[in-house]
Amino acid sequence: MTTVAVRRMSDWLDLARLTSGSCVCVGLDPDPAKMPIDDVFDFNRAIIDATQDLVAAYKPQFAFYEAMGREGFNALEKTIQHIRDVAPHAFVLADAKRGDIGNTAEAYAKAMFEVWDVNAVTVYAYQGSESVLPFLEYRDRGVFVVCRTSNPSSVEVQDIVDDRTGEMVYEVVAKQVVGLSEDTNVGLVVGATFPHELASLRSSLPETPFLIPGVGAQGGDATETARLGGENILINSSRGIIYASQSASDFEEAARRAVDRLRSEIALGRK
Amino acid sequence: MTTVAVRRMSDWLDLARLTSGSCVCVGLDPDPAKMPIDDVFDFNRAIIDATQDLVAAYKPQFAFYEAMGREGFNALEKTIQHIRDVAPHAFVLADAKRGDIGNTAEAYAKAMFEVWDVNAVTVYAYQGSESVLPFLEYRDRGVFVVCRTSNPSSVEVQDIVDDRTGEMVYEVVAKQVVGLSEDTNVGLVVGATFPHELASLRSSLPETPFLIPGVGAQGGDATETARLGGENILINSSRGIIYASQSASDFEEAARRAVDRLRSEIALGRK
Repeated sequence: MTTVAVRRMSDWLDLARLTSGSCVCVGLDPDPAKMPIDDVFDFNRAIIDATQDLVAAYKPQFAFYEAMGREGFNALEKTIQHIRDVAPHAFVLADAKRGDIGNTAEAYAKAMFEVWDVNAVTVYAYQGSESVLPFLEYRDRGVFVVCRTSNPSSVEVQDIVDDRTGEMVYEVVAKQVVGLSEDTNVGLVVGATFPHELASLRSSLPETPFLIPGVGAQGGDATETARLGGENILINSSRGIIYASQSASDFEEAARRAVDRLRSEIALGRK
Repeated sequence: MTTVAVRRMSDWLDLARLTSGSCVCVGLDPDPAKMPIDDVFDFNRAIIDATQDLVAAYKPQFAFYEAMGREGFNALEKTIQHIRDVAPHAFVLADAKRGDIGNTAEAYAKAMFEVWDVNAVTVYAYQGSESVLPFLEYRDRGVFVVCRTSNPSSVEVQDIVDDRTGEMVYEVVAKQVVGLSEDTNVGLVVGATFPHELASLRSSLPETPFLIPGVGAQGGDATETARLGGENILINSSRGIIYASQSASDFEEAARRAVDRLRSEIALGRK
């Protein structure tokens, strides 16, 4: 997959951001109820072609492909290949939220890094360090551990306060998993809808890559997110970009304009 | 899929246990490094044919199929169909440990209950109730939420004590998710290697189905597990059954003997 010698996930991320001048990640969530054209690969290809010079990363959301069975499998395969063809700088992040241990986790890592050949995958660490370590055997790939999510019911588990340390569950998760990689190959998923938590995590983990969903449709503010998150982030938008127009005649142009707008909002936060 | 009118996940579980006289669940984890024959479907078919009258459930571990790409996809499809053909009573549980929210969770539910057509799926509730509710829209299917797992590093997150209530994270998860279904369509994954926690959860949740992995290879005691877990359980064994012999000449017979042994150990716990 790699056309340049890259040793760490963070090198790939740096390359993707430098080449595109952007930390924008486009979520490829093909929903039959919303797509302006029927064919999933044709839809993704149009979005990719219209945005490839402006974005650092693409994030296919595996659920949508799995819901389409074999057709989804084929569309995902062609989509990842197309990203490699037209945007070789781009970081490809599998939003699959896998999580298991031992030889099962090894099998998931194989699926993600050998079958799908992505740069990184989102994972859960509810089962502890054992669910992260097998992915780190692939030294040039990485994981983004689900830490503080952008949805309302995230507080039910993630905000439980540890009676020994006073830390919340999501802070405990963050500290445990980040230390597992010497190569900065462990990032965190931190939602844009909780700016206080984002700032606090960035303060305690200055070097850790953050994947930040939740801007746009979910209500997070991109400018504030960029200001608080610093340089080492990917800001993801899915629906706000790929369904910016639901008309078959202009959805690509609308997607490009939406990426441009997001880049401008992010730039304001960098000043 | 259903040949009888079934309304709730627990009806299916009851039917499967009554028909087989057993709460044994066989984990179908095809690992190329361990399989005595090369073809995944042929392997699974032989295991299923040798055990189908003795077990209540089969649990394909999705990671192993995903690691094989398209070949794994095809093998899984044929495996589930074969279970329906030769063991129509059997409960099919997708061990996929999915977890997401909103329309993404809806897509995962569609993948599991429409594409794969399984009776239930394992899920994470780290993102809270929102990650469970979309699955419950399918009233005749269910979920087993990952609660207290059998691996050593499970304590890192699951044993954090809530400073307000004194409950551990896994207990909070259990209480939150079980109440989401009026139809007993939410079960819990509770590892056999933590008998004290199993007994405590059973005491507070007498009606909830438990999927209990961790007997055999992982060290859990089947007799003690059956005694503590009561009637409404599935006791899973994967490696201890399907790799009881790794010889191509007798692996089916060895699998059947391993199931028989597990049934005897469980029966001792019922006395």
